[in-house]
Amino acid sequence: MASSTDPGRKPRPRELGIVLGTLEPGPHNAITDVPGVRVGHVTIIDDGSSDPPRGPARTGVTVVLPHGGNLFREKVPAAFHVINGYGKAAGSTQVQELGSIETPIALTSTLSIGAAFEGLVRHALAVNPDIGRTAGNVNPVVAECSDVRLNDIRALVVRPGHVIDAIRAATDGPVTEGSVGAGTGITCYGWKGGIGTASRVVTTRGAPYVVGVLVQANFGRARELRIAGVPVGESLRPPARPADPAAASPDGGGSCVIVLATSAPADSRQLGRLARRAQNGLARTGTSGDHGSGDYVIAFSTARRIPHVPAADQLPAAVLPEDGPLLDVLFQAVTEATEEAVVSALLAAGSVGGPRNGGTPLPVSDLLALLGAAPGRRQTEPG
Amino acid sequence: MASSTDPGRKPRPRELGIVLGTLEPGPHNAITDVPGVRVGHVTIIDDGSSDPPRGPARTGVTVVLPHGGNLFREKVPAAFHVINGYGKAAGSTQVQELGSIETPIALTSTLSIGAAFEGLVRHALAVNPDIGRTAGNVNPVVAECSDVRLNDIRALVVRPGHVIDAIRAATDGPVTEGSVGAGTGITCYGWKGGIGTASRVVTTRGAPYVVGVLVQANFGRARELRIAGVPVGESLRPPARPADPAAASPDGGGSCVIVLATSAPADSRQLGRLARRAQNGLARTGTSGDHGSGDYVIAFSTARRIPHVPAADQLPAAVLPEDGPLLDVLFQAVTEATEEAVVSALLAAGSVGGPRNGGTPLPVSDLLALLGAAPGRRQTEPG
Amino acid sequence: MASSTDPGRKPRPRELGIVLGTLEPGPHNAITDVPGVRVGHVTIIDDGSSDPPRGPARTGVTVVLPHGGNLFREKVPAAFHVINGYGKAAGSTQVQELGSIETPIALTSTLSIGAAFEGLVRHALAVNPDIGRTAGNVNPVVAECSDVRLNDIRALVVRPGHVIDAIRAATDGPVTEGSVGAGTGITCYGWKGGIGTASRVVTTRGAPYVVGVLVQANFGRARELRIAGVPVGESLRPPARPADPAAASPDGGGSCVIVLATSAPADSRQLGRLARRAQNGLARTGTSGDHGSGDYVIAFSTARRIPHVPAADQLPAAVLPEDGPLLDVLFQAVTEATEEAVVSALLAAGSVGGPRNGGTPLPVSDLLALLGAAPGRRQTEPG
Amino acid sequence: MASSTDPGRKPRPRELGIVLGTLEPGPHNAITDVPGVRVGHVTIIDDGSSDPPRGPARTGVTVVLPHGGNLFREKVPAAFHVINGYGKAAGSTQVQELGSIETPIALTSTLSIGAAFEGLVRHALAVNPDIGRTAGNVNPVVAECSDVRLNDIRALVVRPGHVIDAIRAATDGPVTEGSVGAGTGITCYGWKGGIGTASRVVTTRGAPYVVGVLVQANFGRARELRIAGVPVGESLRPPARPADPAAASPDGGGSCVIVLATSAPADSRQLGRLARRAQNGLARTGTSGDHGSGDYVIAFSTARRIPHVPAADQLPAAVLPEDGPLLDVLFQAVTEATEEAVVSALLAAGSVGGPRNGGTPLPVSDLLALLGAAPGRRQTEPG
Repeated sequence: MASSTDPGRKPRPRELGIVLGTLEPGPHNAITDVPGVRVGHVTIIDDGSSDPPRGPARTGVTVVLPHGGNLFREKVPAAFHVINGYGKAAGSTQVQELGSIETPIALTSTLSIGAAFEGLVRHALAVNPDIGRTAGNVNPVVAECSDVRLNDIRALVVRPGHVIDAIRAATDGPVTEGSVGAGTGITCYGWKGGIGTASRVVTTRGAPYVVGVLVQANFGRARELRIAGVPVGESLRPPARPADPAAASPDGGGSCVIVLATSAPADSRQLGRLARRAQNGLARTGTSGDHGSGDYVIAFSTARRIPHVPAADQLPAAVLPEDGPLLDVLFQAVTEATEEAVVSALLAAGSVGGPRNGGTPLPVSDLLALLGAAPGRRQTEPG
Repeated sequence: MASSTDPGRKPRPRELGIVLGTLEPGPHNAITDVPGVRVGHVTIIDDGSSDPPRGPARTGVTVVLPHGGNLFREKVPAAFHVINGYGKAAGSTQVQELGSIETPIALTSTLSIGAAFEGLVRHALAVNPDIGRTAGNVNPVVAECSDVRLNDIRALVVRPGHVIDAIRAATDGPVTEGSVGAGTGITCYGWKGGIGTASRVVTTRGAPYVVGVLVQANFGRARELRIAGVPVGESLRPPARPADPAAASPDGGGSCVIVLATSAPADSRQLGRLARRAQNGLARTGTSGDHGSGDYVIAFSTARRIPHVPAADQLPAAVLPEDGPLLDVLFQAVTEATEEAVVSALLAAGSVGGPRNGGTPLPVSDLLALLGAAPGRRQTEPG
Repeated sequence: MASSTDPGRKPRPRELGIVLGTLEPGPHNAITDVPGVRVGHVTIIDDGSSDPPRGPARTGVTVVLPHGGNLFREKVPAAFHVINGYGKAAGSTQVQELGSIETPIALTSTLSIGAAFEGLVRHALAVNPDIGRTAGNVNPVVAECSDVRLNDIRALVVRPGHVIDAIRAATDGPVTEGSVGAGTGITCYGWKGGIGTASRVVTTRGAPYVVGVLVQANFGRARELRIAGVPVGESLRPPARPADPAAASPDGGGSCVIVLATSAPADSRQLGRLARRAQNGLARTGTSGDHGSGDYVIAFSTARRIPHVPAADQLPAAVLPEDGPLLDVLFQAVTEATEEAVVSALLAAGSVGGPRNGGTPLPVSDLLALLGAAPGRRQTEPG
Repeated sequence: MASSTDPGRKPRPRELGIVLGTLEPGPHNAITDVPGVRVGHVTIIDDGSSDPPRGPARTGVTVVLPHGGNLFREKVPAAFHVINGYGKAAGSTQVQELGSIETPIALTSTLSIGAAFEGLVRHALAVNPDIGRTAGNVNPVVAECSDVRLNDIRALVVRPGHVIDAIRAATDGPVTEGSVGAGTGITCYGWKGGIGTASRVVTTRGAPYVVGVLVQANFGRARELRIAGVPVGESLRPPARPADPAAASPDGGGSCVIVLATSAPADSRQLGRLARRAQNGLARTGTSGDHGSGDYVIAFSTARRIPHVPAADQLPAAVLPEDGPLLDVLFQAVTEATEEAVVSALLAAGSVGGPRNGGTPLPVSDLLALLGAAPGRRQTEPG
């Protein structure tokens, strides 16, 4: 994992003076600011020449772990929300029914849901020898984006072992963003997309709560892009994409998977309420929500652990009060962190696969010039 | 309210030896076996002659109170489930979003949702002078059945005051069933329908929990009726309904509103799971779920009270364990109590409005003869 | 209805050079640009002095008619989407089940759902003497906002007759916006809110389709307001609201009801997809979607009429193609029209009830100064 | 595929005089009575001795093809309904959003969702060289049951190739039922479960429509079993299951996947309405819907084909009338066919894996004796 002083790391939005929203981020401005949460990536890049007629591989796996323990033994409250269901996912129905997650969350390439599912299964079987014997079975949670513009998705190069490797690589602390893991080959608003993350810390009457977001940002049309409310997409245009036989999707399409973590004691229903605010964050970046964009939110709380084998006929659980100022600030935190995670992904993503087909990074100097002309949109100079 | 020794009361299913399911009912075999729950009825019957050209009024209001206190100040966890949405209801969206109920639940005649809504509002305003001043507003919960076959629904005779009267009349203890309150003018499987209720007591590892059901049973086609699994509708036929200009609905149609209460500490999501099992109880009585039947389940738990003004940024809440035997037994309790509540409604309903149009009671002796020929369907002789 | 040359009418966004989005509006830039759609208002304003101890009435009813014919006889395809369910509505479950609307859509004050429901029933009964006789019954669709800051909601001054009057007043052509009808007493982003409308015309391969939106805009916190992406709420502040005993809701709260009409042949599922994009439009105006804001979308298509009595066992129906560019442009149209309708409501709303409590209009000159400092946000000078 | 005269085939319900419901089945009393529908199985049985420490394999794959053409090019209208979401599935969210299916439907063993997903992907890629190039990607639909009692689910013996083999094996005509394909290792009401199927033909005003159901029946507790309404589970008891370390699931659990096909021109919303009636069929067989039973309905119509590349901005589509008698009869057909498909699975399933753990077939003669004592439950003698 890159640290925040990683010399190859590109500046993050706040380091460029781009401050989105008014709440304060956590120390890493990352989903890992929610205590216990870990992120791991496996990146797969090759030119495919060793394995003709396969095309280039620019893909991977990203996993988010709600905590570092045994998730099957100690599940977490969760919700799964579909903003737009043009996309694949596994495990969503059980998350919605039982309101919990019991495996790491895996993000990957669109046609690799199957391999990622099997990887999560094999990991759970290895860690829990009683699954399939005395302990029932396990519900993996997987979502995807299509990296078809830069990756030969037909080659299905992601294998179950990649998921296990990503879980092993998962750490807390700073999160590597951009063209890494499940973000390797994806495109966002016509530019190189990728993994992005951000967080917000919320304090009302009691202890502070953290909201963290990680996005696999692969959506949006170039003209629509807004940063800090400024319609930069009207001026900034990625290299023209010619009528390219590899351009399976039209401008637009893509998808955005949003993983939402919080330390607040939200139950499943309340996590669903938080999850529905992620759409606001996407909308602030300019999209109208394309037909072909599978936009899913997977939300969990780290405040409670649900035992696989309950010991009694009732279990204690703290929940958030429904009224009062807290929920509204949490909703704001979700909106802001989602918006910033997308922008952070765009700024972090390094070039992949040449200028065409969405592999070009968003030009930072041009962006800053546009934002600089919009008073108040940059609060500080680049760090 | 009629007591269980009300001399005019018709025998209930178990008094006739009709035992549905294997779990034990509570002392009243009624939704009021859930401690705190109260039921009230207002019945409106007249021939309309005082107010031409209005037709006969055979309608009313039934209310269910989750507890006897101030529901606005102390809400209860709740869920609203739609089995088949051909029907009207108010308040459902807020129950689904917030997972709570803050007024009595009112059942009434189909076009009187508006009057019942206003009645619940006026009651809440009277009890809570701060609503609309310093305490926000209030979400009434109302559902309905069409009593069009026996009642002139165009006359809109139910007024807001009837709801307030029903709330005032609400008591715990035995529940009057049949052609009373919101069950006055309704029809079920071609026979006179009405209000029915039943309960089950469930014990696993800890203290016993009660599940109680109250139905406004106004659904089903005569041929479909099954009691204790016996297809009695193939033999028992209500008086033929001629091509009657007042028979607005074809055979079938109707609706069934199911109020489901439990003392178990289910949260809103878990109450939704319980609510979805009510369909099993309806199915056991023979219906396939008609297009025109608005079948809604309003479920609540009395185990927790949610303060209108929360005092802190987290609230304690016990929840049910998801695994273990408890949920399955609760699901069985919901299925059995729903089935029995429908049968109890059919057996309790007295004649209304003459033999045609669904006003004829199910003939008990013929029914018992059919069940008697089916070994094991009656466990005891009529009481 | 005010015409577009109404001398008392305040300038609309485009007349001030505020152009939101890139698609073209229809001739009235109103929901009535969808052929056949009609809008009617009844406004209720008095000081309550005639009826002590009632407080001032500043409320009303707004109705939207999908067409000028008999909606019960000729229903239209429809969808009902809940963005945030802290609010009341009637009729939503049947719209979701059957995918159609069969009455005008009524918007009103929060506790007046009951009266508005009864008004729609009485109207349907008057027009259709066979309802409740030979033609089944009717499902009214009603939604609401809380005008509690400026209106004595406890007084329940809206009566069923007001709905009938609004239906009678409904016309096509320009729509009166602002503090009128159901917008009379509402507040938006701390300023006077109200009714707003906008439209977009979309052309791809075939004939043009129109998307029209009407909002009852009663949501948002003052600091959040964004217009054309510019965070004007950071500078523009409404008169401070003191700790006012009549301020039942905290800053925020409110609600937004969105009526979405299109001439495109969308079926119910597709209308649901369109409806879900309205959240993008709200988000663009700055909100994170408050807990206490009941944000509902009622969508319908005028392209098909569904007969009350179908003549055959299958009915012809054109639908939109799911792929291709059309849906994406329609989604953009929904986003843009919703955003513009909210801004249009803010600009149209005249002062009601004094400077405190959200009754002050957004100061246009200050707003234009802020937008003028943001290059490209105003395309023309005020008309 | 076994033909209806397969000498090894066990008698089906109607051949034993067990007639469930009143509507007529189609010629094969199978989902393949819906013209165009095909079913294929791959059965995997070995003792695992070749691959220690793996345990026995008793599992497989069953596929249902809505038609014999290229499903990616010609999709069919579809719905996905969750009765109880304790189970895994892939593809459900896109079916719900777009209302269509574009691959065969694969059923398999619980932890093999990943392998089956990849099998469907590989099949679609092979048939459509333009997927991932110029034609977007593809959404596979997979569901599962846990065959943990008889199969070593940890071994993950189902591989992608098995799905492709099952697709190649798919035929129309009679459907092999019981311990075959995805039904090989499953258990139902404590007895050997498996694949079952049934159909109903419905005629009202126009041409007849067919409803066909195929179930992967792996649910229910022994005591609950009801056949033809007779509570046979109270008397018939499978061999006692000792405290067996391989008995991961308690009595109950399991799952039921229901594939529902119809030739009626139902759109996605209407297919959802049909799908929700499948719960009635399950309930008639006695279950209350266990917590641990993942009960999913995948419904499609063969009446319309949706082109992958639409040619115009609107597409013709016939839909069912919402009112009138047709929908109700279709609902009855779904209920009856689901009930009969479960019973047919129980009667067809041959012994697998010894008497314990749910591998024992339901004893037909004992069953017939019980039904024979219930007048009217058997209409004819065994064929």
